[in-house]
Amino acid sequence: MAKQLSGAGLRGQVAGKTALSTVGKSGSGLTYRGYDVKDLAEKCQFEEVAYLILKGHLPNQAELDDYKTKLRGMRGLPDALKNVLERIPKNAHPMDVLRTGCSMLGNLETETSFDQQQDVTDRMLACFPSIICYWYRFSHDGVRIDVETDDDSIGGHFLHMLHGEKPRELHEQVMHVSLILYAEHEFNASTFTARVCASTLSDMHSCVTGAIGSLRGPLHGGANEAAMEMIEGFTSADDAEEKMMGMLERKEKIMGFGHAIYSECDPRNEIIKKWSEKLAADVGDEVLYPVSVRCEEVMWREKKLFCNADFFHASAYNFMGIPTPLFTPIFVMSRLTGWAAHVMEQRADNRIIRPSAEYTGEELRPVPTISERK
Amino acid sequence: MAKQLSGAGLRGQVAGKTALSTVGKSGSGLTYRGYDVKDLAEKCQFEEVAYLILKGHLPNQAELDDYKTKLRGMRGLPDALKNVLERIPKNAHPMDVLRTGCSMLGNLETETSFDQQQDVTDRMLACFPSIICYWYRFSHDGVRIDVETDDDSIGGHFLHMLHGEKPRELHEQVMHVSLILYAEHEFNASTFTARVCASTLSDMHSCVTGAIGSLRGPLHGGANEAAMEMIEGFTSADDAEEKMMGMLERKEKIMGFGHAIYSECDPRNEIIKKWSEKLAADVGDEVLYPVSVRCEEVMWREKKLFCNADFFHASAYNFMGIPTPLFTPIFVMSRLTGWAAHVMEQRADNRIIRPSAEYTGEELRPVPTISERK
Repeated sequence: MAKQLSGAGLRGQVAGKTALSTVGKSGSGLTYRGYDVKDLAEKCQFEEVAYLILKGHLPNQAELDDYKTKLRGMRGLPDALKNVLERIPKNAHPMDVLRTGCSMLGNLETETSFDQQQDVTDRMLACFPSIICYWYRFSHDGVRIDVETDDDSIGGHFLHMLHGEKPRELHEQVMHVSLILYAEHEFNASTFTARVCASTLSDMHSCVTGAIGSLRGPLHGGANEAAMEMIEGFTSADDAEEKMMGMLERKEKIMGFGHAIYSECDPRNEIIKKWSEKLAADVGDEVLYPVSVRCEEVMWREKKLFCNADFFHASAYNFMGIPTPLFTPIFVMSRLTGWAAHVMEQRADNRIIRPSAEYTGEELRPVPTISERK
Repeated sequence: MAKQLSGAGLRGQVAGKTALSTVGKSGSGLTYRGYDVKDLAEKCQFEEVAYLILKGHLPNQAELDDYKTKLRGMRGLPDALKNVLERIPKNAHPMDVLRTGCSMLGNLETETSFDQQQDVTDRMLACFPSIICYWYRFSHDGVRIDVETDDDSIGGHFLHMLHGEKPRELHEQVMHVSLILYAEHEFNASTFTARVCASTLSDMHSCVTGAIGSLRGPLHGGANEAAMEMIEGFTSADDAEEKMMGMLERKEKIMGFGHAIYSECDPRNEIIKKWSEKLAADVGDEVLYPVSVRCEEVMWREKKLFCNADFFHASAYNFMGIPTPLFTPIFVMSRLTGWAAHVMEQRADNRIIRPSAEYTGEELRPVPTISERK
């Protein structure tokens, strides 16, 4: 007999082992390979954290320089992939674009042996910003951009292609922080999708393509987009308070608050909130940031719900001129590190993930001939 | 504290409910909505079984006629999708082609509401054979085939496009049986991938794209291709026995035998074996079928391992002139029904699938400055 689990959605059930991260267990609440995410976000660039997650240790200066040089050399897109992106309409969901771009890349640069897993992952890290920006600028502005910039970082590369000019240092810095905060989060649904796929010994592109599809769901990625849509409808902090009270009264779903695992706070919020405040001062904002702060106060006062990582990301991205539909694709550029590292971990100690189901259907019955059917 | 599970890979752990099928529990061992797969394979066409799995009951004649008419009308491919397929090289993995085709379709015909789930699924059922054959014939033969045939069945449509002529009745019949046998199999890894993705409330194309990626893995789909590669290397039954004994002695992995859930036999084997025998007689085969039978005898005698659904599928497909790399895509055309029905079931009673992990990594430690790192 299969064992009966207590909770739906495998909540609280151990589905495997990981050395990559802890959630709600030590430090500020989120650690990557033993390092507190707060500590990492203060002291590191995203490429250092990607290296840490994928290779197991923080790089020294020479290792970091080599890694960044490697990634810089992998930003170009094959013509066949550009052609595919040009065939995707402007109104497509950007997550569908990335999912398709990743899948197409798997046809052109197939992982034929697990020995290639690190290179295949680095290639995706380097070219996902190219994929999303190439499509976005072609479909929205009708231009074929050059995706091979010489920007120092992945975040800088992304902002450069998006806006057509070298990003300011402050913005590149915020991208480092944001990408670090989203990089890894244990057995969340998209990562678990990647691990289930990996457990059949499928290729890296299949695992990541599947994970993008899961992150696309409104219960997973996309909360920062929903938060943005809400806060840009508020004209002032007082307006925000009044409208939120109405939403709460009508029991409407408010995105960007609370978390499946964290019970008291999301450690990533404090960090991105500080950067959102700095960006607000930088652009002279007097609406979006105060509105966001008031939303946080109201949700805590009324519901004891705290902001998760997504809420202040909305205003921060907005202050940097990033269009709302590209928020979740940025999540992909970052979480790719966690997904790939989990795939490598699954491959290293694999058993196919094949749970059982509780049957709730019909008992055995004979097939009626078609003329007997009602 | 998260509960510790006994087995890796969630083996034997209940991860949710289903009314769609039972495996190893009643009848011959596999039932779809209470009907024995043996009974279904004898009395039904694949479209009846797809209807059963997706809508919950076997169709009467009028319902079946309407359903087949609907599917026939959905075989065409948008130009943008054809363009994408034309950019995928000949040496690509056909599963990567289908994964990309499905993902691209999601950009062009996005599921924007769950009300569309049945239509979106029917569209995929109708056009997946078109996607794989359009790419295959373009990349291999340099022709742009007409994918809108008037064949009565999905299997007939596939064979017609592949060979460029109406299939014989016997072959269309075998396709019905084969597609019925592969249609649904509870919480296998690809179906579970689809359910994890569905649990984020993502769209149907994301769920199916992810499932294709999982089925691609050599531990899941692809066993029929591996079986074919083995048996076509044997020149006679005696040669097969001699070579298999050598493989067993060297402990080489032999595909197409045994099963994660079935312990004594795979109920699908007896059915497809009978059809393989019929096809062998039809083409006057004196090698492949006797070789397959001898393999079955040797594996049972030496290892008490039985043929699973995949083993005699290899010879059956080969007798119908289907190229080996297209075996697993046929599995997709069929299992799509199970995947989609599981997605619908997950959506109807959802909680996000988010298990826990056992942490095996480093304890909390401070981030060293880059100059301190070794």
